[in-house]
Amino acid sequence: MSDSVICSNQTTFRVRYGETDQMGVVNNAQYASYFEIGRTEMFRQLGLSYAQMEKDGLMMPVSELFVKYYSPAFYDELLTIETSVSNRPTSRICFNYKVYNQQRALITEGYTWLAFLNAATRRPMRVPEAILQALSIK
Amino acid sequence: MSDSVICSNQTTFRVRYGETDQMGVVNNAQYASYFEIGRTEMFRQLGLSYAQMEKDGLMMPVSELFVKYYSPAFYDELLTIETSVSNRPTSRICFNYKVYNQQRALITEGYTWLAFLNAATRRPMRVPEAILQALSIK
Amino acid sequence: MSDSVICSNQTTFRVRYGETDQMGVVNNAQYASYFEIGRTEMFRQLGLSYAQMEKDGLMMPVSELFVKYYSPAFYDELLTIETSVSNRPTSRICFNYKVYNQQRALITEGYTWLAFLNAATRRPMRVPEAILQALSIK
Amino acid sequence: MSDSVICSNQTTFRVRYGETDQMGVVNNAQYASYFEIGRTEMFRQLGLSYAQMEKDGLMMPVSELFVKYYSPAFYDELLTIETSVSNRPTSRICFNYKVYNQQRALITEGYTWLAFLNAATRRPMRVPEAILQALSIK
Repeated sequence: MSDSVICSNQTTFRVRYGETDQMGVVNNAQYASYFEIGRTEMFRQLGLSYAQMEKDGLMMPVSELFVKYYSPAFYDELLTIETSVSNRPTSRICFNYKVYNQQRALITEGYTWLAFLNAATRRPMRVPEAILQALSIK
Repeated sequence: MSDSVICSNQTTFRVRYGETDQMGVVNNAQYASYFEIGRTEMFRQLGLSYAQMEKDGLMMPVSELFVKYYSPAFYDELLTIETSVSNRPTSRICFNYKVYNQQRALITEGYTWLAFLNAATRRPMRVPEAILQALSIK
Repeated sequence: MSDSVICSNQTTFRVRYGETDQMGVVNNAQYASYFEIGRTEMFRQLGLSYAQMEKDGLMMPVSELFVKYYSPAFYDELLTIETSVSNRPTSRICFNYKVYNQQRALITEGYTWLAFLNAATRRPMRVPEAILQALSIK
Repeated sequence: MSDSVICSNQTTFRVRYGETDQMGVVNNAQYASYFEIGRTEMFRQLGLSYAQMEKDGLMMPVSELFVKYYSPAFYDELLTIETSVSNRPTSRICFNYKVYNQQRALITEGYTWLAFLNAATRRPMRVPEAILQALSIK
């Protein structure tokens, strides 16, 4: 089933002052960067290092981003990002994200699609075996 | 018709060094900020100042963001953002964006929904008359 | 003595992907934001919340920033920022910062001066008593 | 004389919404990025392209940054950055910056030192001849 979660991760981080804007809340553009924290930490939990994978010749540019904003986040709040993968990656992978505040209110959710590229040629490639193995979906 | 463009704007800007990431291209999060340039300039073209509207008690937080990335953008490129509104605003407004590089290739497109809020109460409100008038859709 | 440290704090954080630039290292502008993490955490350690102080009518804009870059920082590195105050605050306060990587190499150092402003009037004021008390330098 | 200006440039740009913070003014970290606009445009005026120089194997990391903040800048303001070089570059180059608002008030000033690095080896090198020639200080 495409809806069953293959893998998920929870990571907590604090809102920085410079991430707010003059509306007094976290600027909308910031969430794309929070999502990046989420997937980096999911890779780490899987025993993978995106930093190392990139050195080994893989690039994973974002090909699609969606964010739905329900409530604002504020400076110095401790936010929790829940990142999950529910579909077997092919030539790309979809990460889903939910961001919660300390009252456990869902404040933002969204997803990103990332492509797998050969860093040398910048051409698309299939999902590396190491990722499938880490996701236990060989 | 919901597909006919009510209003559109073209604005050109240059990619800054700090907007790139170690992939050597503009970081994905940056486009949400480019989209903000687009709608600010459309408002200016309409004779409206978002800065002034905010001082007058209106806030327009982003409630939804979508970005589709086709090709990368590079440091120092002159990009053109085309911003348009195709639907009559109600309690929210949708802006569509297309980002082109100097070869006129469409590199990114997307949209944002923004809510109209009373800045004092942070409660939703209907689209201000001044915006409908500026869009000539009274 | 102006050189004896009144208060110091150590905080650890991870470099995000979007904080790098196409040189493959953390962009120089990012350190001003890292410094802000350092002073927020020092305030927290002192039992003060800058977020709360701002709600109570205090603003502390940066009036001077200095950064010396010795070595680059890389994506996903765990950096440690050491923040200290060595001078009794008057109408402004100086924070010193040292940023170390995981090999404990000093990669960046610097300082910021921040003014104390009355948020309502945006006029300068003297250091609040609560800050002197927290620093134990009444 | 070290104080006579060898070269200077003026560039104008507009403050983006996401560049403000909850103090309602441009965030202090943003100026390092404004300074980068200034030196990119000075290079362009000299007939040099920093983007091209980097492709040709030169890197110019910032080794020192100083910023003095006199007055705040606001969303949608048109700022002017004046960038100048007053000293003959050696293995590094100093750029001075002054940022003015539309009332021509000096709101921020500062400088950056940048090193010349061989991009392949990341080792220091002397200022390239092309830069001395462009500055007419052969």
